[in-house]
Amino acid sequence: MSQKQNLISVTDARDTVLNSVQVLSSERLDLFASLDRVMSENVIATRLQPPWDNSAMDGYAVRSADVAAATDTSPTLLSVTEHIAAGYRSSRGIGKGEAVQIMTGAPIPEGADAVVRSEDTDQIDDSTVSIKKSVPAGKDLRRAGEDLSPGDLLLPAGTRIRPAEIGLLASNNQTYVSVHRRPRVAILSTGDEIADIGEDTYDARIIDSNSYSLTAQVLDAGATPIRLGISRDDPTELESMLRAGLSADAIITSGGVSVGEYDFVKSALGALGTTMEFWKVAMTPGRPFAFGTIQDTLAFGLPGNPVAAMVTFELFVRPALIKMSGGSKLYRPTVRAKLLGDIGKTKGRKQFLRMQLFERENQLYANPTGAQGSGILRSMSLADGLAITHEDQTLIRAGDEVEVMLLGGDSVHSFTRNC
Amino acid sequence: MSQKQNLISVTDARDTVLNSVQVLSSERLDLFASLDRVMSENVIATRLQPPWDNSAMDGYAVRSADVAAATDTSPTLLSVTEHIAAGYRSSRGIGKGEAVQIMTGAPIPEGADAVVRSEDTDQIDDSTVSIKKSVPAGKDLRRAGEDLSPGDLLLPAGTRIRPAEIGLLASNNQTYVSVHRRPRVAILSTGDEIADIGEDTYDARIIDSNSYSLTAQVLDAGATPIRLGISRDDPTELESMLRAGLSADAIITSGGVSVGEYDFVKSALGALGTTMEFWKVAMTPGRPFAFGTIQDTLAFGLPGNPVAAMVTFELFVRPALIKMSGGSKLYRPTVRAKLLGDIGKTKGRKQFLRMQLFERENQLYANPTGAQGSGILRSMSLADGLAITHEDQTLIRAGDEVEVMLLGGDSVHSFTRNC
Repeated sequence: MSQKQNLISVTDARDTVLNSVQVLSSERLDLFASLDRVMSENVIATRLQPPWDNSAMDGYAVRSADVAAATDTSPTLLSVTEHIAAGYRSSRGIGKGEAVQIMTGAPIPEGADAVVRSEDTDQIDDSTVSIKKSVPAGKDLRRAGEDLSPGDLLLPAGTRIRPAEIGLLASNNQTYVSVHRRPRVAILSTGDEIADIGEDTYDARIIDSNSYSLTAQVLDAGATPIRLGISRDDPTELESMLRAGLSADAIITSGGVSVGEYDFVKSALGALGTTMEFWKVAMTPGRPFAFGTIQDTLAFGLPGNPVAAMVTFELFVRPALIKMSGGSKLYRPTVRAKLLGDIGKTKGRKQFLRMQLFERENQLYANPTGAQGSGILRSMSLADGLAITHEDQTLIRAGDEVEVMLLGGDSVHSFTRNC
Repeated sequence: MSQKQNLISVTDARDTVLNSVQVLSSERLDLFASLDRVMSENVIATRLQPPWDNSAMDGYAVRSADVAAATDTSPTLLSVTEHIAAGYRSSRGIGKGEAVQIMTGAPIPEGADAVVRSEDTDQIDDSTVSIKKSVPAGKDLRRAGEDLSPGDLLLPAGTRIRPAEIGLLASNNQTYVSVHRRPRVAILSTGDEIADIGEDTYDARIIDSNSYSLTAQVLDAGATPIRLGISRDDPTELESMLRAGLSADAIITSGGVSVGEYDFVKSALGALGTTMEFWKVAMTPGRPFAFGTIQDTLAFGLPGNPVAAMVTFELFVRPALIKMSGGSKLYRPTVRAKLLGDIGKTKGRKQFLRMQLFERENQLYANPTGAQGSGILRSMSLADGLAITHEDQTLIRAGDEVEVMLLGGDSVHSFTRNC
């Protein structure tokens, strides 16, 4: 157990976190419940796709040899022996000089080897068609098994399930699919100063926003939140609430991990967790950060300031939850933008600056969302993304290009186009 | 009622659809249920943020005048009259020569006008502190109302709710928020040739994948699906099932809107809908497309081919559902990529080509996902996005830059960074 505050870079902290993550076990889900989940097993095709030779167009199934001489001015007449809709099959096939009227998707009758499209025909009467164009063998046929044969790999393990995958699984005649389960994440706010919504804020208490924004971040990461409530700064209460979270895959606390005298969380996490690390991460906002395991549960001790809690969640907890869920794209998308206005920063820390993005004449610009204090949640709400600075920078000048991590919601839709 | 097939551009079809869309009414939701919804009303701040002058750091609250001469080598001694944690308030304030030990977030005692950080002090004993640095008035104080005052606009109507907004609403002491309701969307597959998963595919039936992929697309667009099932090609059954969908905000059918003889859907939609338009949209895949209103319900008649149904949903239905939900970012994000290999296309049609994207040496490339037949759902599953071509192009050459609409899932995460 390391109780001293280690100084650590963002990258090293993240690597340590991700190296501790195990991908979760799998569960079998109904197709629609599997949307956005990650497949835990290969799915093998069980059927021919298409299931039989079928028509790619509405028209007439013919023997191509019969219509080899057909032209617009010198059409070939064929006897129409049947009219087949999709979903029905020819009862007898066709012979020389015969044709079957056929709809898109309907099976090709025995004996036919091509389809003449409706627009290249004239229906003379119910039993005669005039073919005005020759077609090569195979024309406008879709062959059985052209797309898939039984035994082909339909979808590999690790695939994130989108609507196309759900359609594909349905067409494979299956109502379920095996996916990695969602991480269950216990969330605990701590501190005598924290009141819940609607509670009295007598004396000097502030309303808990962290457990709300963190719960929403857990949902947004595809995980299931378990809200433990608010613990007073009381070692017994704190330890008992943390123990209640040990049935989850991860516990997130906010507050109580810095160097202050009243930081009971640090002691409680340290006492319960044999591998807890207490770090000063070289970043702003969000310096104090604790990470480790308590029994089989990952424990994340986030700072108490609202913005610092959200940013450390984004950088360390979210990628871990995605990895647990079997995902391979762990990080938020980023875009590059020109900074408006100089920004001074502390050397040695990676600063994450809340930015509004906008476009002018095909150039993307990043504008800070006002004061960057780590208590100012509104500046996080105004932000499309976080500009990521380098540890060794001290000044980022107006016009410099910065990398901005998009915070989701509409920003991805607004700014991807313009980057 | 227009029953003839009109030729129409993608843009005109989309404009006609979007001009018919009404934004839906609102409902009051629990905070977490509101995640990803769009706010239907302004929310006004009800509280000061921060609620009182408080300390930005752990340290000592002082009168700045008392420590004006303090330096590392010639510190100033002050009497410590109290130790205040966050959540507690000084009982008596401070006078000349006095200090109060204070934690981040705790209210500033009456009489104090600055905070000296812990690292610039030495605790001599329980009632004496040595101050080693002078601080100007206001140093490390956060002023009451610095971020928000009652009456300020906290969040405007139209805001899409992300985790930061949920934290902000919680800190405004509210457990609910008014948002536009989700569109309810009825989904109907049609055709004698369609069997449901697990049903016998005797004779020449194929398994319904459209209602599955479309249901997943409806969910993915933030709407609520109502699955009506599969209608046979029987006018009575079809009309009765369509009527069952009229309680929804929109009905989506797939199949039966082209010019074939067995296209009962077209007649049923035409008979029920006073404003139905039957279009040939100048696009591939997905030419036949019907749109209009039946009573107060928007009706979308999508083509029956699996890929054509998904692509027309993406282009016409999804933006309409997002607009109904109050959203303003109606379209998928796009990136620009270099095409690999020449692609020939039909002049006069906008072609949407399924593409895999990959990056090499900071350049994004688009590679077609094999055969582009509109029945080949697997090529949609393999695709990161759809390359959008212009109507008047006939050949797009290898190396040409194409705009690719990202289809969601991991593709947004993978390729935004690289564009």
